[in-house]
Amino acid sequence: MRAEILSIGQEILSGFTINTNAAFLSRELEERGHDVDCHTVVPDEKRAIQQALKEALKRASLVIVTGGLGPTLDDITLDAVQPLFRAKPLSLKNVVGTAPGAFFSSKEKGIFLLPGVPREMERMFHEQVLPILTQKFPGKREYLYRFSLCLLREVEVDAFLRDLQEEHPEIECGIYPAQGTLQILLRSPEPLDAIGEAFEKKFPTYVYKEKKIEEALHHALIAHKKTLSLAESCTGGAIAARLTTIPDASSYLLGSVVAYANSWKERFLHVSHENLIQYGAVSAQVVEEMLKGLFAETGADYAIAVSGIAGPKGGTQEKPVGTIYIGTAKRGERSDIGKILAPQDRLSAIDLCVQTSLGALWRRLVHNKLTFS
Amino acid sequence: MRAEILSIGQEILSGFTINTNAAFLSRELEERGHDVDCHTVVPDEKRAIQQALKEALKRASLVIVTGGLGPTLDDITLDAVQPLFRAKPLSLKNVVGTAPGAFFSSKEKGIFLLPGVPREMERMFHEQVLPILTQKFPGKREYLYRFSLCLLREVEVDAFLRDLQEEHPEIECGIYPAQGTLQILLRSPEPLDAIGEAFEKKFPTYVYKEKKIEEALHHALIAHKKTLSLAESCTGGAIAARLTTIPDASSYLLGSVVAYANSWKERFLHVSHENLIQYGAVSAQVVEEMLKGLFAETGADYAIAVSGIAGPKGGTQEKPVGTIYIGTAKRGERSDIGKILAPQDRLSAIDLCVQTSLGALWRRLVHNKLTFS
Repeated sequence: MRAEILSIGQEILSGFTINTNAAFLSRELEERGHDVDCHTVVPDEKRAIQQALKEALKRASLVIVTGGLGPTLDDITLDAVQPLFRAKPLSLKNVVGTAPGAFFSSKEKGIFLLPGVPREMERMFHEQVLPILTQKFPGKREYLYRFSLCLLREVEVDAFLRDLQEEHPEIECGIYPAQGTLQILLRSPEPLDAIGEAFEKKFPTYVYKEKKIEEALHHALIAHKKTLSLAESCTGGAIAARLTTIPDASSYLLGSVVAYANSWKERFLHVSHENLIQYGAVSAQVVEEMLKGLFAETGADYAIAVSGIAGPKGGTQEKPVGTIYIGTAKRGERSDIGKILAPQDRLSAIDLCVQTSLGALWRRLVHNKLTFS
Repeated sequence: MRAEILSIGQEILSGFTINTNAAFLSRELEERGHDVDCHTVVPDEKRAIQQALKEALKRASLVIVTGGLGPTLDDITLDAVQPLFRAKPLSLKNVVGTAPGAFFSSKEKGIFLLPGVPREMERMFHEQVLPILTQKFPGKREYLYRFSLCLLREVEVDAFLRDLQEEHPEIECGIYPAQGTLQILLRSPEPLDAIGEAFEKKFPTYVYKEKKIEEALHHALIAHKKTLSLAESCTGGAIAARLTTIPDASSYLLGSVVAYANSWKERFLHVSHENLIQYGAVSAQVVEEMLKGLFAETGADYAIAVSGIAGPKGGTQEKPVGTIYIGTAKRGERSDIGKILAPQDRLSAIDLCVQTSLGALWRRLVHNKLTFS
């Protein structure tokens, strides 16, 4: 079934709010066999909303509208949409916020109006919209397979996917790289029973079932009843912040020493002044000492330490911007330390370092594999 | 001038990539006097791209297209757009990536094709697009005023803005709240010389000129040549991670002790075991000890410490989910510690805690004001 998402809101058109709702709804719909063909954003203006909805309904059978349902003056979505239909809508309960949603049905087409606040919208989608979708607008019958891989690049899976596509021309294959991880999405009209095994066989120790690598490591640490300590320099707390977005991270994460200044590396992690001078803070030697410091100071079973040059300044000929040393360790065993060269863009470099270090520790914990050495 | 943004890419329609390009371009265009009336996203299909571009050109004089310019098979934007115009486009240099952009001009309308990778697109926009825009498509002549406020809610500025609007009915006023901060955007056909002063007078010690509170604190710490240490529990490193997104954070940030486990609070920050038992980790007493521990262990001039229940579990009747204690301190002076009640949503709670603590320290540093006591 063809679907479109129509978002209402001047705050999106002004660039103050990023349209994460459209991404959420797209993922949810695509996973249920609906093709999302268009996202549109228009301002909180009656004519613009009506025009956009009419256009969308020419193309799609299912339109999900978000935003403009609140109590304030500029919330006019319902007033704009109601005149386009004869019947009154079905009201959708909002258990998180105040404004209810609405469902219009006309000529075998379905139109849902949902609030713009993401957590209100998401809850309403799951609890109110999905039951109606399943019953009245079932997605096309297809089989969806999702694989996540850490520590591999697109080029490293390309040949495998080409072979797969040749063998199964009926499959649609999407590949979504994101700084040190890959997501692969396969849609097939028929079940592909052996596909999971084929992936596992081709990329053993790289495939995980969660969408995000932090979720994979989170589950693995809890399942193995192990604890983790972190020592972060160039990531500035981003590894800890990533893990702690997930509820229950406290069951394994002891903490992170974000040792941005060298004085902190010495004070909290016992990195030697001599090594800092001789090898520099961005070196395998210092990362090794950071790992040792964590084990000496905390009771963790596992540790991650990172130190690098995120830029844009601070690079040298020997160690250009993007040079990052990553180390993972298990108490009592030898460390696994390596160097990566990240993009010369500060946020991308931090992101790559976060995902690579989480992936390396996950491989070590789950598959007992070293990544860098 | 009316503008629209057309993004090409199945990865956006599948929800794997969030369309941050549209937000970036909207902000840039709106600040230069262009009204962005519509965002559209369509797949990498020739017909869909042509159809969407034709529709956009019916409504707008300026259309910026992003995505689908790379070297791979599914990059077909240029092939789709070229047949709609007689003349060859002007090529736009890509200094970060490989695929060049393009500029078509026809019947006083302008169409820019830019790459989909954000940092390639942003650089090309600034270096190649802006000069053409300024010369050939100047925005409407209007005066734009932007004010950022920390620690205030929408309701606290509402009366002031209503009075302002009554006095100047010609002004367009937008207000964009975001967890502990507000952005206010005023557009006026005439200069409003006294508006800055009026804001400063009404909300002294809350108005800053940067867009983000972390930028305001970053600049203030550098200008005052002061250093900062952090002790984070419920934010899990997010305060440090936020500050370190900005290049040069190392010139003032010494580090953060992300003491997620109580054992870390005791070990690294000398929080007393007795206080942890008597008052609990989420208490003013423990936050006070975290601040003291930072000053004892590190040479920082200023410190922030936070401890709270981000949820969804861990709440009690006395301290429900969302209860967070925030403390800021200056070495040698008394601490400023207070309690906030954040939304019962983990990520919103973390975000509110980050922005509130940064705002409170900024007020203390720049205006010598305590926020909580």
